[in-house]
Parts: sequence; C-alpha cells; structure tokens
Amino acid sequence: MVTLAQFGAGRIGKIHAANIQRNPRATLKYVVDVDPKAAEALAAASGASVADADRVLADGAVDGVIIASSTDTHKALAEAACRAGKAVFCEKPVDLDSVRVREVVKAVEKSGVLFFVAFNRRFDPSFSALHQALRAGRIGKVEQVIITSRDPGPPPASYVKVSGGLFRDMMIHDLDMARWLLAEEPTEVYAVGSCLVDPAIGKLGDVDTAAVTLKTASGAICQITNSRRAVYGYDQRIEVFGAGGMLRAANRTDTTVEVADGTGVIRDKPMYFFLERYAEAYRIELDHFLGCLESGARPLTGVEDGLRSLLLADAATESAKAGRPVKV
Amino acid sequence: MVTLAQFGAGRIGKIHAANIQRNPRATLKYVVDVDPKAAEALAAASGASVADADRVLADGAVDGVIIASSTDTHKALAEAACRAGKAVFCEKPVDLDSVRVREVVKAVEKSGVLFFVAFNRRFDPSFSALHQALRAGRIGKVEQVIITSRDPGPPPASYVKVSGGLFRDMMIHDLDMARWLLAEEPTEVYAVGSCLVDPAIGKLGDVDTAAVTLKTASGAICQITNSRRAVYGYDQRIEVFGAGGMLRAANRTDTTVEVADGTGVIRDKPMYFFLERYAEAYRIELDHFLGCLESGARPLTGVEDGLRSLLLADAATESAKAGRPVKV
Amino acid sequence: MVTLAQFGAGRIGKIHAANIQRNPRATLKYVVDVDPKAAEALAAASGASVADADRVLADGAVDGVIIASSTDTHKALAEAACRAGKAVFCEKPVDLDSVRVREVVKAVEKSGVLFFVAFNRRFDPSFSALHQALRAGRIGKVEQVIITSRDPGPPPASYVKVSGGLFRDMMIHDLDMARWLLAEEPTEVYAVGSCLVDPAIGKLGDVDTAAVTLKTASGAICQITNSRRAVYGYDQRIEVFGAGGMLRAANRTDTTVEVADGTGVIRDKPMYFFLERYAEAYRIELDHFLGCLESGARPLTGVEDGLRSLLLADAATESAKAGRPVKV
Amino acid sequence: MVTLAQFGAGRIGKIHAANIQRNPRATLKYVVDVDPKAAEALAAASGASVADADRVLADGAVDGVIIASSTDTHKALAEAACRAGKAVFCEKPVDLDSVRVREVVKAVEKSGVLFFVAFNRRFDPSFSALHQALRAGRIGKVEQVIITSRDPGPPPASYVKVSGGLFRDMMIHDLDMARWLLAEEPTEVYAVGSCLVDPAIGKLGDVDTAAVTLKTASGAICQITNSRRAVYGYDQRIEVFGAGGMLRAANRTDTTVEVADGTGVIRDKPMYFFLERYAEAYRIELDHFLGCLESGARPLTGVEDGLRSLLLADAATESAKAGRPVKV
Repeated sequence: MVTLAQFGAGRIGKIHAANIQRNPRATLKYVVDVDPKAAEALAAASGASVADADRVLADGAVDGVIIASSTDTHKALAEAACRAGKAVFCEKPVDLDSVRVREVVKAVEKSGVLFFVAFNRRFDPSFSALHQALRAGRIGKVEQVIITSRDPGPPPASYVKVSGGLFRDMMIHDLDMARWLLAEEPTEVYAVGSCLVDPAIGKLGDVDTAAVTLKTASGAICQITNSRRAVYGYDQRIEVFGAGGMLRAANRTDTTVEVADGTGVIRDKPMYFFLERYAEAYRIELDHFLGCLESGARPLTGVEDGLRSLLLADAATESAKAGRPVKV
Repeated sequence: MVTLAQFGAGRIGKIHAANIQRNPRATLKYVVDVDPKAAEALAAASGASVADADRVLADGAVDGVIIASSTDTHKALAEAACRAGKAVFCEKPVDLDSVRVREVVKAVEKSGVLFFVAFNRRFDPSFSALHQALRAGRIGKVEQVIITSRDPGPPPASYVKVSGGLFRDMMIHDLDMARWLLAEEPTEVYAVGSCLVDPAIGKLGDVDTAAVTLKTASGAICQITNSRRAVYGYDQRIEVFGAGGMLRAANRTDTTVEVADGTGVIRDKPMYFFLERYAEAYRIELDHFLGCLESGARPLTGVEDGLRSLLLADAATESAKAGRPVKV
Repeated sequence: MVTLAQFGAGRIGKIHAANIQRNPRATLKYVVDVDPKAAEALAAASGASVADADRVLADGAVDGVIIASSTDTHKALAEAACRAGKAVFCEKPVDLDSVRVREVVKAVEKSGVLFFVAFNRRFDPSFSALHQALRAGRIGKVEQVIITSRDPGPPPASYVKVSGGLFRDMMIHDLDMARWLLAEEPTEVYAVGSCLVDPAIGKLGDVDTAAVTLKTASGAICQITNSRRAVYGYDQRIEVFGAGGMLRAANRTDTTVEVADGTGVIRDKPMYFFLERYAEAYRIELDHFLGCLESGARPLTGVEDGLRSLLLADAATESAKAGRPVKV
Repeated sequence: MVTLAQFGAGRIGKIHAANIQRNPRATLKYVVDVDPKAAEALAAASGASVADADRVLADGAVDGVIIASSTDTHKALAEAACRAGKAVFCEKPVDLDSVRVREVVKAVEKSGVLFFVAFNRRFDPSFSALHQALRAGRIGKVEQVIITSRDPGPPPASYVKVSGGLFRDMMIHDLDMARWLLAEEPTEVYAVGSCLVDPAIGKLGDVDTAAVTLKTASGAICQITNSRRAVYGYDQRIEVFGAGGMLRAANRTDTTVEVADGTGVIRDKPMYFFLERYAEAYRIELDHFLGCLESGARPLTGVEDGLRSLLLADAATESAKAGRPVKV
C-alpha cells in the first residue's frame, strides 16, 4: 500500500484525492492547502488529515506527494520533496519559466526520486490505443500529425493573467502529444495567434485562437489548432498520417443516442470539458504513478518531458510574437 | 445498339427513358401511354416517337420493351411482348394476383424471351456490395436478416385502393431482398400490421405499419419492419448476421456535411425517396437488362422471382388478417 | 449511510460489492455464500464479514440486502428478507416460475418493503437518455421498437440446462426494455427460435437464435432479435420509431480510434460483454436503489416488472414451441 | 442550346465531353487535340468533329470553349478565345506564371467574355452545402479553417517536372477553397514541405508532403495539409470552425456497407481519386458555366480567382524555400 500526501485541494486536487481513495493500492494520509477550509473539506472527504508541508515531508511513512497546488508553488514543493526523498506526481506545468524547470530537473537528478509529470492525455484510453497502434507499426513511419484542441469556453481574465499565455497553459498539452506521437523532437516551431474570442484576453497580451506548425529533422510535420471556445464542447481529436495509413481518435460523447427527425440526424456533442473527457485518464495516470513507485520503472512522462514541452511552448510564444519560425 | 420501346410515361417511366437516353448501348424508339400528352412529352424529351402497342410489337427493329405502365396493364403487355418475341423489362409487381402471374410465367417459358422483373434494390451499389460480400463468405452462414424499410410519407387513398395493400405494394421489395439475402426460400410467414399513420388507409382495410417474420427450412430468420411515414426521409437499411460476423448497409445522404453546435452534432437525414436513393440502381438495372439481352445471360430477377415475392406478400397479407403464421 | 448485506459472491456479486465499496452512501456489512472460500475472499476484499442468512436478517443494523446468489435461491431469500423488513435489491430473474414469482409479489405487498429488480439495462446511460428523450416527446407516439441483443458467445450446456431457456434467461432483458419503451403492455407475443450456434443447446431443447414480435393494444409493434453468439462482441442496440422521428442507441466501444488503410476504415468492435458494457449501469442502479431506500420513492423496476417480463418470456417460449402467437 | 468546342482530349477532357453529351442544354461541336488519334476518338464518342483551333474560333456558331489541354497551352488559347468573343471554361491552373495569368486577366477584361476557371471542388455537393450553411450564418464568424487533401499516389516524375511544384499543382485547389471559405484574402502564408513519399520528387526540387498556414487581416487562420500518397484513397476533408460551432465535410465512399467481425467494424475507404470523388462536381460546374452563359451571371470562379490562388501558391513555394512566412 502506497501512502501519499497531496498539495492542493482545488478542482484538480479533488479529482486526484477521489482517485486515490478509490484505488486499492494507495491511501491518502495528508492534504495541504493554503486555504484551511478547502484542506479540511477535502481531508474529511478523503479520510486524510490536514497538515503543513513540513510535517508531510518529515513523515517517513509518506512514500510520495501529489503536487496539485497553484503553478507558482510547484517548484519549491518539488524541490523540497526531492530533498525529502519523496516520489513526486506533479501537475503540469512544472513551472512557467524554463530556467526554473531546469533547476527542478537538476534536483530530480540529484535526488534520484521518481518524478512524474501529469500529462494526462497520454493516459486517455483512445489516445493511448492510438499510440500503441502507431508504435506497433500499424501505419508505418509517421509523416503528419494533426492535433485539434479546443476548450468549451475561455478562462476568466484573472486566470489568463497568471497562465503564462495560451501556448504555455493550453497548447503545452498538445505539444507534449506531438512529441509523443512524432517520437522525434521538433526542430522548428511556427505559431500564429489571434484574439477572436474574448477581447479581455487580447488586452492581457495573450491570444485565444492559435495554430502551430512543428517540423522535425526527418521532415515529419505537425499541425496543432487551438481555440479557447467551442460552443459544442471540449474538442479533442488526433490524427496521425503515415506511409501505411492513418490513425484517428475522435471525440467522446456521453451517450451513443441519435435522433432522426425532419432536420437531420443528431448525435451528442463531445463531452463537456477535461474533468469529464479525461476522468479515466486521471485514474489511469495515478495507477501508472503507483506502478512506477512499486516497480521502480521510469514514468512515461518525467520532468525532462515537462521541460521539453515548455521549451516548445516558449518557442511558439516567441514565434507568434516575432512573426517567424523559431528553431528549438 | 439495343432498340427499345417503353410502355408508360409516368414518374418511373421518365426515369427509365432518361437512363436509356444516357446509355450508349441503347436507343428508345417508341413511347406508349394512354395519356397522349404524357406520351408526346416524354417521346419529345427522349428523341422517340409516340406509338401504340400494336405498332411497337410489330416493329422487327424493336429488341425489347420496358413495361412501366399501371400495374393492371402489365400482364397483357407482358404476354403480348412474349408472343412478339420481345425481351421484357417489367416493373414490379408483375401483377397483384398470383394466378395471373403464373400465366405470365407460362407465357415467358413458352416464348423463351428474356424477362426481367425490375427489383431495383438488388442493383443499389450498397446492397449489391453487401450481397457480394455475403456470397463471398465474409460472414459465414446467414442466420438472421433484419430489413428496415420506411417511406417518407403515405400515398393518397386513391393509390392505396388499387395497390394490393402494403404487403404486396411496399413490402414486396423487402420480401425480394429477404429471398436474395437468405439464399433460401422462406417456409413460414408471420405478419402483424397496424394503422397508425393515416386513418384513411385503415378505412380501406389496409395497414400502414407492419412487421413480418420469415423462417426458412434451415432455421434462418428474417425480420422486416415497414412504415408508410418516416419524417426523416426514406429509411432503407439492411443487416445480415452470420456465424462469422455482421454486414450492414446504412442509409445514404445527399452530403457528408455535419454541423456541431450547442445542441449536438447534426448530419444529413437520409435521401428523400426512391427516385433519389435508387437513382443509381435504376441506371444499373437497365445496364443489367441490356447486358442480358446482348449476352443471353439469365437476369438476376426473372418472372419467377416476381411470383415468389408475391406469394410471400400474399402469405403476409393472410397472416396479418388471420393473426397466425402461414406456411408457404 | 445505508448498511447492506449481500447474498452471492460470484461474478455479478463481485460487481455489486465493488460498487458498494466505491459508493459513499453505502457500506457492506456481510457477505453470504454457499461456498465459504468465495464468501471469505469477497468479504476480505470488501471490508465485510462472512455470515449466514439468519444472522444477516436478524441484524437490525442491516437496511437492505443484495440478492445475487443463484436463481433457485432468490425466492426464499426474498421472502425471508420481506419478513425481516429488509429492503431488497434482487438480481433478475426473481424466479423462473411465474407462480412462484407471484408468491414473492404477495410477500412484497404484505411486507411493504422496497423491492428492486435489477434490470440493469434501464440504467445504461445511453438507453436511459433515449428513454428520457422518448418520454419528453422527442419523436411523438411510439409506433415501432426494434431491439437487437446478441451475446459474444454461448454459455456452457450446464448453464443452459438450469437457465429456463433463451427467452427467460436472455430475452427477458429485452422484454423488459420493450415494456419500458412501449410504455404499454404487449397483448400478443409471437416467437420463432432456431438452434444454429451450438447443437448442445438444441439437444437440451433450447434455442440459441430467436426473434420475437410483440403487439400492443394500441397497435404498436416491437421486434426483438437474439443470438447467443456474435463474433464481434456484445451487440446491444435499440431503435424506437415514432410519429415524429426515430431514436437509436448504438453499441459502445472501448476507444474512438479508427485506422484507415488499404482495406478500409476500421473502428473498434463493441465492448466485449455485459460486465464491460453495463459497468456504469451497475453503478447507477445501485445508486438508484440507495436513493429509493433513503427517500422512500418507488424503484424504477419493482417485483411486478419482474413478473410481467417473465410472463412475456413464458409466452414467447410457448409461442416458439406451438408455432403460433400467444395472447398475454 | 449552347454550342461548345473543346481543346484537349485527355483524361479530364473525356470527363467534360461526356458531361456535355449528357447535358440537354449543350452540344459539343468540335474537339481539338495535338494528338489526332485522341481527338478523333473523343470526337467520335461525342458526336463532334475534329478541328483545329482557328476553325473553332472562326465558327460563329460556337458559343464557348472548354480549355482542357496541357497547362502550357492555356494562355494562348484563352487569349485567342477572348479575341474571338467566345466564353471560356478553363481548367486550372490558368498558367503556372502569375505574370502570364495577369495578361489573361487583361485579355478577359478587355474582351468582356465570360471566363470560368474550373475549381471543381467548389461544386462538390458536400463542400457546396457546407459553404452555403457557412454563408447562411450557421456557425457565425469563421475563425479557423482546416483543409485535408491527400492524393492516393504520387504522379510520375515526368508530370512533377512540368507541374510547377506541389503548391501550384496540388495545393492550389486547397488555396482556392481556403479563400472561398474564409471569405477574406489571406495576407500571410507560411509553408513547410518535405519529401517523404518519393525521392524522385525531391530530386526534382519538389516536395510531396506539405503544410501551410494562412492568416487573414481579421485574424482568421487556415491550416492546409497535403500529401501525394494516402494508401487508403483520396482524402478530401474540410472543417470550418466559427464562433457558433463547426462545420465538417467528410470523405465520400462508394457504399455504406460495414462489416463487423472479430477484428473490428470495417467501412469503405474513401473514393479512389478525383475522377470518382468529383464526378458530380464536374457535372455541376458545367451546368454552372452554361447557366452563366445563358443568363449573363458572373461565374463563381473567374480568372481573378485563378490569379489569386496562384499568388498564394507562389507565396507558399517561396515560404517553403526561404523558411519564413511571406506576405501576400
């Protein structure tokens, strides 16, 4: 049985705590949060105790920590956990500044702890099955990757302000998917962005609509399209084209019901947002982390994956501003 | 070049005349219709002449005749064509009375002419591809056949009155499909019918909603469902289940466009009615008839197929009235 | 917090025990099974104790019981639970003999306990959404219901022998769905059955391939098709046709991945069997039972629904044997 | 009745000649081709005569000409037709050199003749319905356009050599679609290209795999992906995303048949290539041209559309070579 502590009792923290509770291989001992009420509520719901970071890290019974607090606290917590020899399950992004992420990379290397960066999409059953078919050679060598990623609605300005911008906050997931599917590092990034959804986002110097083109040394090409608002729900699709065919993963829906009437044949729109669409992915990534902890295996996404995706997001941010492709 | 004459200048007659005109292997020499205006209009549009039946059948240049006139005229025309040694392309049904159809069977046998009964659905590219996959053994032995057939809207009472009833007029197509797909004659027919769409149909003693179960000697089962009204268009689907899998042919649509909005994901409803859905089937069945004429090959559907489907429709009619299965 | 005890530690028992454990509203106190090893294993996995029926029913802390033991034990346990004033969650079928089920109906009426018959399909999110759309008037009055239900593979002869036959064991689920969707009792049942899948089933006097037609007083028609073997998985589809359109619920798949290659475009086959396909339904039906227990509301499916479906299954069995429709 | 002459008796010429023959509003009087055998064969099949360009253009009975000869001959023929006052139906591209296309633009303006550039995809029923829904406001303001366009197999080196390169030869169609769907001129083009399919194409300095990003003044973004080889057939899809939803047009297939077996559920791959996929589009564009000729209406795609798409293709070619975005 793995004993865990969790930093962060917000939206994503609740997901992880519930999954720990449901998982027969793990138990949640502590919940830490700057908001005592939130910490207490989640601790009560999870059979855990409220504690502060020091107590958590000093407790020898704690095998690992879930870092699901606000992004600006990730680095210090991650480094402290490394020093305390705790395995780390860290929500993305590790940090918004690549210099600081490199410091975490060093701390991880020095400590030798298990460090998992929670790129949840890799654990979605459909994306994961697509990746498996790809690696099994189902469509031969990858030539083109097309990633569609649209949120149902834009975040509030307060969030956008501290988000690091669309490329680091939202597209970073797609950049990680691109690296994973291409199985080769992109060497060039070209990005265009527009503010078409919410003028408040533009006033903050950010974009809400974007397209990125990645190219690898071998000539494979990836196109990513992002929007902060899709009225029909969370649009999460992947297409990989290769010498021997094409693999696609479509959106998921709540039901398979369709109604035919005088206007057409109507099916469900995609599931609403990430909590719904990636509910299984969150459960599976926890299992993956626990498995690595038990077996000593390398996690599918380590701190260096967090760094590399951030470097791509930085390059995209720079490209969109400068209006030219950027080498990575 | 095959020289044809056509009886009937109505809706289906226009389809056949246009297909003959477009077909490089055939030419339409005559159009015959009781309505001189209709005959003249179609003859003008087709580069043909108006004539009466006697002249058509006496003209040695005429290789074959299309019988697309009203059902009650089919038998006499078919027999006359047999006597004149003309190949016959006969719209379904050959006649509404099986005794009379047997007389046509005899006339055909005696004369040895090519006699094609136009069960157009067998020539639909999707149904035809399904049948081909079936015969190629794609799903092994057939165990269940499910046929869905719904019209967009009910015919007028005037038509219903002379139609022979739903089973002989509408379901006869599905009964022919069932025979073709089962590749074995049904030995028992059970039918239920209701009048749910238009009370006027019920007043005429007919039904507008029906379900039939067929069983063959080997135990294969077929279910057919019919309705005279589907608000979403012409619903024409087939499912064949076998020991090694299932084959299905879905409805066809005008376009592949789908729109996703706040209400769902909306695709086209099925094509409107038989003229649209089976436009290609009408062209292909003409080609088939011409091919048989040129090569001497047996047609896919001969007069005996017309008879056997009618006998199944008769049995269904009797079953629905008597409330018990009927042996065939 | 509702305290439950469970009779039966087999395949379906494990599902229910796991769902209770995961459900924050309930706790499992006892597991009862004739096989002490199975009882102990499940009790250990569920944090419950092993007990016998008498102790369970005498324990005033027990609010309700899950009856998931073998079918022949349902009646006695159900009646004992009624006498003890425990709420009952009873797996289908209540019993294979309608006379005995009527006795349970009386026991339930006399005791006034909550009695839920676990027709799991009604709780499947897709079927449930379809039903909700239907009752909301989305397609107007129901005229035709088409239910497809095929298992991936036939059960062993030992199971078939005590199953009550295909109509009572397998189709009973579809008969319950038919009643629910028609919202009107069928008055006539016609069934045909064949043994096409496994001769051992035929030797036991049962069929493995069947089709049923139901008709209601208002003239609505339902067709059900069953097979004990579908090589492509568990085929569970529903189509409801009405005056204003059609509702369909398709099969569910493990992923949304499709691969396009030189042979075609290939998607997942349906989920393998009921444990996978109805995993959510099992969770939701437990929630429904707990909700009824807490609120005193009538369950969606009571003992009388178990009886009515069995009467339809009896009628179908008789019809298939006698070769004629049977009034209900 | 419109009288036409046609330059070019090759693959696409045969399509147009057959469509003219089938069209009741037009007649084909002459066929012109440098290969006398090809000209004669097509003339014979079409009921036309073989002639040379001078005779065709001098014949006052000729209302318009179809230019379907090799690309290098388009300009001279187009200009001669303008001088002769004949309406022109010109296959794309007008010319591979934008300077020369501007000369044709001037010739058209000076003469005032109807000049139609045959961007066939605008007439595909699915793309055309998508465009109509878009213009009707179905998804609000356009924000993103995603165009997928892959050929089944690469052309021979001999063709590639004179093709003007992938962007001018193949992607020009997609660039025209982009302009049409965006309803706004792109102001910036970024292109990347690779040679992944056939090294022979790379040796000629061309690419066979490419991605383009277009941006308009209002901030709308278009992504186009091209490949010269898709083993599953001709991949022609469009997605338009807007403030109020998304419109998509999927690939078309020969049939709607699907087979379910132990490996999955398999549907048809897309139609093989442009002759199959755009068969209807070729018929409809001819009708459009004839309608413009009869009514005096402006064609949907005039010579200036040919020019603008070519300028975008030029910019893409330059961008791919220079490795930076190019302003248009």
